[in-house]
Amino acid sequence: MPNYTLYYFNGRGRAEILRMMFAAANVKYMDKRFEFNEWDKYRKDMPCMCVPVLEMDGGMKMPETMAIARYLAREHSFYPKNNMDMMRCDYIADCFYEIMHDYMRYYHWKNGRFRFNMSGSGNGPSSPTSGRGDMDTNSDNYMQWRYMNTCHRVLPFLERTLEMKNGGKNFFMGDQMMWCDMMCYCALENPFMENQSMFSKYPKLMALRNRVAGHPKISGYLKSRNNTNW
Amino acid sequence: MPNYTLYYFNGRGRAEILRMMFAAANVKYMDKRFEFNEWDKYRKDMPCMCVPVLEMDGGMKMPETMAIARYLAREHSFYPKNNMDMMRCDYIADCFYEIMHDYMRYYHWKNGRFRFNMSGSGNGPSSPTSGRGDMDTNSDNYMQWRYMNTCHRVLPFLERTLEMKNGGKNFFMGDQMMWCDMMCYCALENPFMENQSMFSKYPKLMALRNRVAGHPKISGYLKSRNNTNW
Repeated sequence: MPNYTLYYFNGRGRAEILRMMFAAANVKYMDKRFEFNEWDKYRKDMPCMCVPVLEMDGGMKMPETMAIARYLAREHSFYPKNNMDMMRCDYIADCFYEIMHDYMRYYHWKNGRFRFNMSGSGNGPSSPTSGRGDMDTNSDNYMQWRYMNTCHRVLPFLERTLEMKNGGKNFFMGDQMMWCDMMCYCALENPFMENQSMFSKYPKLMALRNRVAGHPKISGYLKSRNNTNW
Repeated sequence: MPNYTLYYFNGRGRAEILRMMFAAANVKYMDKRFEFNEWDKYRKDMPCMCVPVLEMDGGMKMPETMAIARYLAREHSFYPKNNMDMMRCDYIADCFYEIMHDYMRYYHWKNGRFRFNMSGSGNGPSSPTSGRGDMDTNSDNYMQWRYMNTCHRVLPFLERTLEMKNGGKNFFMGDQMMWCDMMCYCALENPFMENQSMFSKYPKLMALRNRVAGHPKISGYLKSRNNTNW
């Protein structure tokens, strides 16, 4: 087993699916967290100037949340076996990632983060906590609309997809928890905290989240993890 | 071999990677294209109210561009063999997809498309060519910045990554063309047409695009495909 180091902010965000998969697979890793005011220090050492990033044996750093998740899923049997089922698991996970992606952009934007060189070409550093400018209100509206629109597009499909397998009583792919089930937990964590009524339309997805949280390895992880707002 | 039908607009966009993979694998499929003014008719039959969608044997419809691409890559040997190399291929493809995703959102937005229920919760249909409103200029600026920022974040990393394998003289994973190489071709097609000078900083990526275009199956496909603006 390689020595893994996971780099991310001191938040759940895009890294939580990876932490959850490490926990479910019972794999040790260094959970390297930093604060927003440390980002300038870390940013230039990250492959695409973004995180999460996985480092192996102190060597090469790997970017892209979902590429890392897929690697861990193949390594630790959180993927189904045949190609059709792998595609199903992939598109379910990608649908949840659409929500996570649009939510994270909305969440950080409204908190005034990650606006590198907004007035220029986008090719330069600036503080992740730099001030809010003229385009803020409209862009806030756009990003909130985008995130909600994505929820309304993909959640009904995911509810139906879950229901098609044993009436939605188990996991997405049957009686084994796969990484797409863990994506259901992670991607909806902040959205659910912020707007519980929106999710009353998706009772099977909500019950699935409880099943994931009740998984022996996951329940221990959820009790012991850092408690953060996002 | 199943009977495949690919649903998308009459454009390259997010579907072109799939068409290119079908061509490279020499697999026949029905290339079902429609115009923007037909979208209301198709939209509700698509799993997440978006395209591309792959239908198999006239049965279930599968969403999510990259999930479909991964399925085709596993089916037709456009993935490397071991898990580490699969992760590399995945993060390279995902980096290109970040550009494709942000470019497509920017491109459609500035052309006034896909603004379903902008003033409300995002849960309702409207014409994909409905009018442009107050938030347009600022949102245009935001989306252009976002797309350019993504290019400046990921392209230097991709250029370095390509160079690390045989000095960048072959493909990303060695002497065999993988689906991440085809992503390099497709994701940069419109960006390169619109701003060639931006890409002069990435000569190895540009040379790779020419190698992909020169692949025997791909070159035939590129000569015979529909000629569209996007």
